[in-house]
Amino acid sequence: MQAPNPSPLDSARERFRADLVDAGLLIPTAVPGLYGRSGVLESIIDAVDARIRRAGAGAHGSTARVLRFPPVYPREAFDRTDYIASFPNLTGSVATFRGDDRAHAELLATRAEGGDWDHFLEPAGTMLVSAACHPAYPTLTGTLPEEGALLDVYGYCFRHEPAIDPARLQAFRMHEFVRVGTPEQARAHRESWLPRALSVLTELGLDAVAAPANDPFFGRAGRMLASNQRTAELKTELLVRLYGDLDEGTAVVSCNSHQDHFGSAFGIDTADGAVAHSACVGFGMERIALAMLRTHGLSVEHWPAPQRALLAVG
Amino acid sequence: MQAPNPSPLDSARERFRADLVDAGLLIPTAVPGLYGRSGVLESIIDAVDARIRRAGAGAHGSTARVLRFPPVYPREAFDRTDYIASFPNLTGSVATFRGDDRAHAELLATRAEGGDWDHFLEPAGTMLVSAACHPAYPTLTGTLPEEGALLDVYGYCFRHEPAIDPARLQAFRMHEFVRVGTPEQARAHRESWLPRALSVLTELGLDAVAAPANDPFFGRAGRMLASNQRTAELKTELLVRLYGDLDEGTAVVSCNSHQDHFGSAFGIDTADGAVAHSACVGFGMERIALAMLRTHGLSVEHWPAPQRALLAVG
Repeated sequence: MQAPNPSPLDSARERFRADLVDAGLLIPTAVPGLYGRSGVLESIIDAVDARIRRAGAGAHGSTARVLRFPPVYPREAFDRTDYIASFPNLTGSVATFRGDDRAHAELLATRAEGGDWDHFLEPAGTMLVSAACHPAYPTLTGTLPEEGALLDVYGYCFRHEPAIDPARLQAFRMHEFVRVGTPEQARAHRESWLPRALSVLTELGLDAVAAPANDPFFGRAGRMLASNQRTAELKTELLVRLYGDLDEGTAVVSCNSHQDHFGSAFGIDTADGAVAHSACVGFGMERIALAMLRTHGLSVEHWPAPQRALLAVG
Repeated sequence: MQAPNPSPLDSARERFRADLVDAGLLIPTAVPGLYGRSGVLESIIDAVDARIRRAGAGAHGSTARVLRFPPVYPREAFDRTDYIASFPNLTGSVATFRGDDRAHAELLATRAEGGDWDHFLEPAGTMLVSAACHPAYPTLTGTLPEEGALLDVYGYCFRHEPAIDPARLQAFRMHEFVRVGTPEQARAHRESWLPRALSVLTELGLDAVAAPANDPFFGRAGRMLASNQRTAELKTELLVRLYGDLDEGTAVVSCNSHQDHFGSAFGIDTADGAVAHSACVGFGMERIALAMLRTHGLSVEHWPAPQRALLAVG
């Protein structure tokens, strides 16, 4: 993974990764960006989640509908998101074996000779979930009530971007609060969650700043989409500096306005018959946990008292 | 999905599925076997897990190493498990787009014409996790200490077996305690967990029975493997009858002896230099939750007091 002359940033990422592995917090696998998590890392993630749920309850009471999706969802819904147009390189499509005994024997013979056996597989009709909220939109197809919809979704996401940076994982968890309704409802959701998410991070002892951002749209055409998204201020990220001045910081929370993208794609209308708008706040769970480890140290026993207390109550 | 003349068992499965969907506990998707989970269903799963963790602590204190893996793991490790030889039809392989702007434009043009675009994708080097313990074995390669290894793993598993039965999911969670060591250590683990798992189920108010079982090995050759596994008593399942006398019951827990399969595949030796044996107990989390809903009713407020109390404390 390491270039012959790594940049200072790459070296810092590599060191942080090595420190996390040495501390037993991340368990490396043969593939960059895929790790096992230790019990301690999981307990940090659970403690972070308890704070996020409390912020959600403070903002919305018990009005947010809790939905939990598995890490795999229908190709048909994926297709509607248009994700393959914007982020094909991050996509995870699921293939499986649908053949008979004879085809299986051929697959095994090819494999025994060291050959590639992927061409024996066929699409399984499913995709890995790219963003926690994607599987939720099909549940809203139709006309929303006056107050719109408010969802609490939490699940594993997949993005194929192997990297040495331990904060850039191929599989990670995202906890989102999603608002679908009028443009005003969506805008108010996003605007209210920016300071609220910032105060969650402050409580976790993280020094975060808000910054306009764009998604990593693919290719030449993608550069224009990214520029448009930034100009229209559709995405704001909360950044924590894991690597000092070597970069602008790592996005640990993202507040997004989707305008009518999902409303249009999934046939979701507001009570007055317009195409619904949506907005979400997404907490990157592993990134927040890693930011706490970077900020407070790798030994949770030596963390500042307020953050140790968060871990104790879970 | 429904045959023209469904069997009484299929009708019972279809009705249970419809009841769960009507109660808002399972949220259907366009693909059989993939569902969203409601907050109530998740709270049942968390309560079940609390009992499992308590049983684990009672048996092992804090000696079990907690490891949590994402739902995707390296192809290289998958390949060593030999799963593709025994269960090719359940496998989930991950593909992604690795091409350039031009190939992407071709993909999108094909898609715009309604064509299949899978042939533009390439293997991503990863697989969906088939059993929660599979990603853990590569962490044990080498020589074990005298006392062997004891792991607590919990995660999402994928099996491509679309079905109308809500207890047969394509993506589900499994909590396992895995012992790797001498044949005696592995055997003792499996034997001690059978009654312990049964008592967990009893506490959950489930009427479970132990039965010899076999894995669903693929194809003609697989029938012999299945028969051998059953004869050698390598797999015992705890069954709960979700559908009365219409079948033998649904396996909600599985106690498995792997003999030296994983020790040999992953180069794991005992302290005295022999190939390590392994055994595991696996709790099917969604199946246990569904068995509770089937047994105690779909309204948790009307559950028997002891099970309601489990939910309250989480």
